[in-house]
Amino acid sequence: MKQRVSLVTLGVSDYARSKAFYAGLGWSPALDIEETAFFQANGVIVVLWARDKLAQDMGIPDDGARWGGIAVAHNVASDQEVDEIIEQARAVGAEITREPATTFYGGYAGCFLDPDGHAWEIAHNPGFGLDSDGNLVLPTS
Amino acid sequence: MKQRVSLVTLGVSDYARSKAFYAGLGWSPALDIEETAFFQANGVIVVLWARDKLAQDMGIPDDGARWGGIAVAHNVASDQEVDEIIEQARAVGAEITREPATTFYGGYAGCFLDPDGHAWEIAHNPGFGLDSDGNLVLPTS
Repeated sequence: MKQRVSLVTLGVSDYARSKAFYAGLGWSPALDIEETAFFQANGVIVVLWARDKLAQDMGIPDDGARWGGIAVAHNVASDQEVDEIIEQARAVGAEITREPATTFYGGYAGCFLDPDGHAWEIAHNPGFGLDSDGNLVLPTS
Repeated sequence: MKQRVSLVTLGVSDYARSKAFYAGLGWSPALDIEETAFFQANGVIVVLWARDKLAQDMGIPDDGARWGGIAVAHNVASDQEVDEIIEQARAVGAEITREPATTFYGGYAGCFLDPDGHAWEIAHNPGFGLDSDGNLVLPTS
């Protein structure tokens, strides 16, 4: 198995609501078919799909739990961009779980939950560089 | 906000167990610091970090739910590769929630849960091409 993530699928309970939420953040699907939205991101594709269909397709009994312990992070190049995106998320109805603040690793981050409770962190980490495509560059250990 | 995923952080309850599990799948961290493992994938970075620390850092009350409705997919170029990776996952203790089988969209996929219940789908989707880096190529709608 290679170290590759092809898609991150967020199970949603109200497709129209979720599409409107991500549209409000400026995301536009490359493909929108049979109530499934595919957003082309950096190498990885983010998908919105009905949670009950996803659970059935994955063979997972679903108890509708709010948070499963996964955080999806979107890193930016400045503290100001963190503030701006958190305000943008707040404006489209996100629950802000962490107001932007300095982090234990010397960065700056804010966090929000999307309409289904999927957790996003918006972060500026000066210790991790960003390449010309905006991808994080890990320091060597 | 750009369409970019910087990191996918999987909250884990036993760091050593999770590291061993992903090592068993052939994953090797570029950086392993303070019980945090960073795996460089295609543009995105996958992170293993203690679930309680992640929850606290994100400002999320955590009830230890098993599945939160996110699936991380790893796509490959053939049905045979799907079978091989599912067997590899089974061998290192994954719970197989969907044995490899044809999918409703004309592909072939199997699914497993990692030691914390994070859901992975291993899929071959002939409708989505793979570029030379192994990234999915979306058809235009």
